[in-house]
Amino acid sequence: MEPRPGTTFTRVRYPETDRMGIAHHSHYLVWFELGRTEWMRELGAPYGELEDREAAFFPVVEVGAAYKASARYDELLSIATRLAWVERVRMRLEYRIERDGTLLATGHTVHACVDRDGRPRRIPDELLARLQAAAERAP
Amino acid sequence: MEPRPGTTFTRVRYPETDRMGIAHHSHYLVWFELGRTEWMRELGAPYGELEDREAAFFPVVEVGAAYKASARYDELLSIATRLAWVERVRMRLEYRIERDGTLLATGHTVHACVDRDGRPRRIPDELLARLQAAAERAP
Amino acid sequence: MEPRPGTTFTRVRYPETDRMGIAHHSHYLVWFELGRTEWMRELGAPYGELEDREAAFFPVVEVGAAYKASARYDELLSIATRLAWVERVRMRLEYRIERDGTLLATGHTVHACVDRDGRPRRIPDELLARLQAAAERAP
Amino acid sequence: MEPRPGTTFTRVRYPETDRMGIAHHSHYLVWFELGRTEWMRELGAPYGELEDREAAFFPVVEVGAAYKASARYDELLSIATRLAWVERVRMRLEYRIERDGTLLATGHTVHACVDRDGRPRRIPDELLARLQAAAERAP
Repeated sequence: MEPRPGTTFTRVRYPETDRMGIAHHSHYLVWFELGRTEWMRELGAPYGELEDREAAFFPVVEVGAAYKASARYDELLSIATRLAWVERVRMRLEYRIERDGTLLATGHTVHACVDRDGRPRRIPDELLARLQAAAERAP
Repeated sequence: MEPRPGTTFTRVRYPETDRMGIAHHSHYLVWFELGRTEWMRELGAPYGELEDREAAFFPVVEVGAAYKASARYDELLSIATRLAWVERVRMRLEYRIERDGTLLATGHTVHACVDRDGRPRRIPDELLARLQAAAERAP
Repeated sequence: MEPRPGTTFTRVRYPETDRMGIAHHSHYLVWFELGRTEWMRELGAPYGELEDREAAFFPVVEVGAAYKASARYDELLSIATRLAWVERVRMRLEYRIERDGTLLATGHTVHACVDRDGRPRRIPDELLARLQAAAERAP
Repeated sequence: MEPRPGTTFTRVRYPETDRMGIAHHSHYLVWFELGRTEWMRELGAPYGELEDREAAFFPVVEVGAAYKASARYDELLSIATRLAWVERVRMRLEYRIERDGTLLATGHTVHACVDRDGRPRRIPDELLARLQAAAERAP
């Protein structure tokens, strides 16, 4: 499996499985966030630095997921992340989780940009430019 | 705060908070499930027994959540659960999470009914009757 | 089951179970923390207020647990918490988790008292007095 | 950083942090398990296969951890795993978690070997031989 831009990988951890024998649906949100973290690192804007240096936080204001097939312990999953759109204070990311080419789940998150006190603020200019460029590139 | 039908309570646990100082968005899915668990118990159909005695499993096939305000450590949250609709092999539940009357989040889950091997099956007759009655009662 | 001082209750949540069908061992640490939170509230020193008002934080510097029997989905567990000892900058708490009188696990945590920047600091005087009194009362 | 035998890596995930801004202590147990999973894969005995093919399960019967320094969001951690001892029905593994050569935590787990119904059973012969060889090689 060769890495493509916007794609990261994780294995299903034992405590992510439940008594049904499959990964619990809540962990897909954590995997979406893994995808987002790596996608922002590739973009040249590691998320931790945005919080620490720019005081720009991106809490999730909306999330959705559709589950197509189950994931099991130790399976290697790919998480593909793309930016659907970005505005001055919001953006929407979309995700696909696959195992060996089989689609397991799709999802999306909408993020607001807020300051340290949780008040809406504009996305920092340099980041906004990178995000707009990424939105144009997105398939 | 007196308990209403279909409402359960939980406090925000320390590890449910993140470095932003608020409850991480993924835990709301766990709280929806707490609401669902208590709602099914009130309905007379504890979920664990459905799995163990009827081999009826209800994996989540779709989830959505909208976040309106943050939850913080140790805050007491109410989770209200209602059945939106039920069909032979699927049902949709809706949730409202509040703190002292302030709406924090709304959400929904769609569940398929499957057997032990993950194949679609009809919802057991007695449960279906209870669910249909609940759907008619729902506000 | 009537509440005794230093005892709180929780039900095993679905995502706390794993593919072995039992609660994953890591969640017992979260349950110890539930016990600790309620024990401190009873002591008149809610932990969140210590952090917010006194800038006194109590990170875990050591933890241990011994598992005797399994816990399953939806089972009601009791968590008993007691203070083993307290010094100027450290304290040790001990826990017993039971289900209907059957011992499932014992454990302990040692906590350091630190300030907002993670530097050791003395436990605030009033809290220290309460803790010392609790240590004398402990069975 | 080049991989050494018995060492695996993970980054601190956002929801693994708490309001203190550091990784919550309970997640170290999950990281120990990541180390264990990769260590067993290297040993030629992937844990999932032991459960599925041999009906040999290794629940944790004892765990301990000592925390020396904090881990923060997105930091890359190394997890070193070694086998301390193995007997017919039990084994003890030890862990070291580091960030860039700084020790963050040490820990251990003791595992019993049980069958699908949770009854003690001997460790499968071939696995026992591999584990004994590993115990002799361990530093």
